[in-house]
Amino acid sequence: MTLPRELTAEFTGSALLATVVIGSGIMAQRLSDDVGLQLLENAIATAFGLAVLIAMFAPISGAHFNPVVTLADTILGGKTRRQALTYIPVQIVGCIAGAVLANLMFAEAAVSWSTTERATPSNLLSEVVATAGLVAVIFLLVRTGRGALAAPAVGAYIGGAYWFTASTSFANPAITVGRMFSDTFAGIAPTSALPFIGAQLAGGALGLALAVWLTPRRG
Amino acid sequence: MTLPRELTAEFTGSALLATVVIGSGIMAQRLSDDVGLQLLENAIATAFGLAVLIAMFAPISGAHFNPVVTLADTILGGKTRRQALTYIPVQIVGCIAGAVLANLMFAEAAVSWSTTERATPSNLLSEVVATAGLVAVIFLLVRTGRGALAAPAVGAYIGGAYWFTASTSFANPAITVGRMFSDTFAGIAPTSALPFIGAQLAGGALGLALAVWLTPRRG
Amino acid sequence: MTLPRELTAEFTGSALLATVVIGSGIMAQRLSDDVGLQLLENAIATAFGLAVLIAMFAPISGAHFNPVVTLADTILGGKTRRQALTYIPVQIVGCIAGAVLANLMFAEAAVSWSTTERATPSNLLSEVVATAGLVAVIFLLVRTGRGALAAPAVGAYIGGAYWFTASTSFANPAITVGRMFSDTFAGIAPTSALPFIGAQLAGGALGLALAVWLTPRRG
Amino acid sequence: MTLPRELTAEFTGSALLATVVIGSGIMAQRLSDDVGLQLLENAIATAFGLAVLIAMFAPISGAHFNPVVTLADTILGGKTRRQALTYIPVQIVGCIAGAVLANLMFAEAAVSWSTTERATPSNLLSEVVATAGLVAVIFLLVRTGRGALAAPAVGAYIGGAYWFTASTSFANPAITVGRMFSDTFAGIAPTSALPFIGAQLAGGALGLALAVWLTPRRG
Repeated sequence: MTLPRELTAEFTGSALLATVVIGSGIMAQRLSDDVGLQLLENAIATAFGLAVLIAMFAPISGAHFNPVVTLADTILGGKTRRQALTYIPVQIVGCIAGAVLANLMFAEAAVSWSTTERATPSNLLSEVVATAGLVAVIFLLVRTGRGALAAPAVGAYIGGAYWFTASTSFANPAITVGRMFSDTFAGIAPTSALPFIGAQLAGGALGLALAVWLTPRRG
Repeated sequence: MTLPRELTAEFTGSALLATVVIGSGIMAQRLSDDVGLQLLENAIATAFGLAVLIAMFAPISGAHFNPVVTLADTILGGKTRRQALTYIPVQIVGCIAGAVLANLMFAEAAVSWSTTERATPSNLLSEVVATAGLVAVIFLLVRTGRGALAAPAVGAYIGGAYWFTASTSFANPAITVGRMFSDTFAGIAPTSALPFIGAQLAGGALGLALAVWLTPRRG
Repeated sequence: MTLPRELTAEFTGSALLATVVIGSGIMAQRLSDDVGLQLLENAIATAFGLAVLIAMFAPISGAHFNPVVTLADTILGGKTRRQALTYIPVQIVGCIAGAVLANLMFAEAAVSWSTTERATPSNLLSEVVATAGLVAVIFLLVRTGRGALAAPAVGAYIGGAYWFTASTSFANPAITVGRMFSDTFAGIAPTSALPFIGAQLAGGALGLALAVWLTPRRG
Repeated sequence: MTLPRELTAEFTGSALLATVVIGSGIMAQRLSDDVGLQLLENAIATAFGLAVLIAMFAPISGAHFNPVVTLADTILGGKTRRQALTYIPVQIVGCIAGAVLANLMFAEAAVSWSTTERATPSNLLSEVVATAGLVAVIFLLVRTGRGALAAPAVGAYIGGAYWFTASTSFANPAITVGRMFSDTFAGIAPTSALPFIGAQLAGGALGLALAVWLTPRRG
């Protein structure tokens, strides 16, 4: 694949991921009263959408949509430093564009800064766990020759992690930035974004260490 | 496959798709109070049913059930112009027949024109996005040798897109026509159908362009 | 496979299918207020459980659990008349045993005759459609070399059909008999069972005719 | 695989399984009012999470996370007695660690003994059935050459069994111990744990006998 095609895939996939997460959150919040039911609707839509997006773009760019995944893959030699340096900004800009698209599809202001503070200790611990698990899922599958399972596995993982972590598992710095741009169900206040991203990087390192230690023979 | 078998498959699949969408909408509306819960029930039934219908009929006709998919496949050379000219009316008549069947199974009048106006700017933008995504999913999978994944992927895509678009993702001109024939949860007023179909055609072109640009080496 | 093993598989699978359908109905009715939510819980549990039961027993007996499927398979030459004559009573007795087991697990009377009348014209039409679809799914997959997909496809089909038919898709004479033995969410009054079974047989013939016409080259 | 890697996989998988079960239970209980909806959220999160955990760790340790599965596999010769004697304590300690992690992620006390009494006759019968089914699913798949399906099948099985048994299907002595350490939705009082584990062992024996009798030709 050429770099322009890879970057188009990462941009489009990241944008649609943000659209799925934020758009389904807006729909859920508008239509349901029970907050748990809202999260269930948001989680099922995200699990389905994320699995499909990975299946769509995996042969083009690897379907990372997530700087932590790109960093881990670069450390393992799957991507070059040059690829990483272009992937990551494109993922972030993609997630912002997807947030704006979700806002517009639901007739909200194109941009409204989220006011949902989330940076509590329990949420930060949750982000460490969520991101460690995400990175471990991906690289355990890839390093045991089962990369084709990543699409349904990552979709199911995130669908579950919305529930088993207190933070609802952002697990992705690009989507964390994108979610700042919508003051709706899935949003996060800019002041909470940096601590979340720090926790995600720590979790990613943990998950990568686990995956590498458990599968020492390859790559 | 011979054309009569192909057209039987397209007719039956399109009819049952309309039955699934409209029938599950009626059931949900009758049994649940919360509108979000109704949409969740409708979305899960549609995701399951659509995936199964594609798996059933794909080896016979390609399991399009959707004029936008047939047009895109014809542009790419997968179907002849003659096939397209027979598929599309059969899909539309099939979706109408399926709407009538759903009405009858639920003891409603065989036909009741929907009065649900849906042609708002945000819904039309939603239909562009929904149909672009649908066409991109299908042709990215097919053009990377993974057409066998289309059944679960399209089911999951539509199940998610019911939530992440404001329009609940019709994404199909034939089903749009069929839904005019039932004044129930999933219906659409005839005055809204034409703008929806226009948005779907625009989205289909966008999705096809993306898929072709990302997978230049094949067909 | 020897006949005793086949019959053990059909008995156990039919029993557990009835346990899944009736047990999850009891649990849903006890825990949830909204009737639609009860049906959603019942449908998801049934979709998951049925898919797993088919995967478990398919290599042993074919995992029919359903006299209509056994009859269709016998007509196509997949089972002998002798097998059919033993399968069908074992399926029926299995479903009754499973109903009793569900009642006991939930501390209900071992047997309580259902008082839920269901034999309305719209429900009987629904059973024709539901069973036609079920038989068509199974034999279209088998006759196109994709029998291994039957487990997830049939699970998803029934999960969807609980919603898109008015009758909630019994689609199986053995489970219809079993459901008479529990006066709970999933039950059916004995007076309604015979019309349901008649509609299922008609639907099965329709579905089989469709599958055979669409896939003429095999079996 | 070396034993340290196997034990790391069993520890991490068992811990995360307990985190998924208990964490999603806490989230569901906090966000939803309807108890059935709470169980649906808990069941979907568990089905997704368990399937992913098995897929992650199966090539390393077999992904048992369950002493009953390890005992059955040892009886069949799949694991040595030495492996079993190390797996089982590691599974139990893992589940306890996972319970503590769930408590901490949700800002609960690190340990709070559950006060939920569950040892009723109907729940014990339910645990026999639930564990028999679980063991039969796993070994019928493995002994017919379809072990790769265990991940989605076991996830779906437990997701269904939360509903079709009265006990919500613990089906695992290690998770039963872990659930004692959280006085939340998924907890179990220590006084109920021993009878549950006895029922699970009985069910495991039953399920193993069924699987072996039905698949006599192998292992």
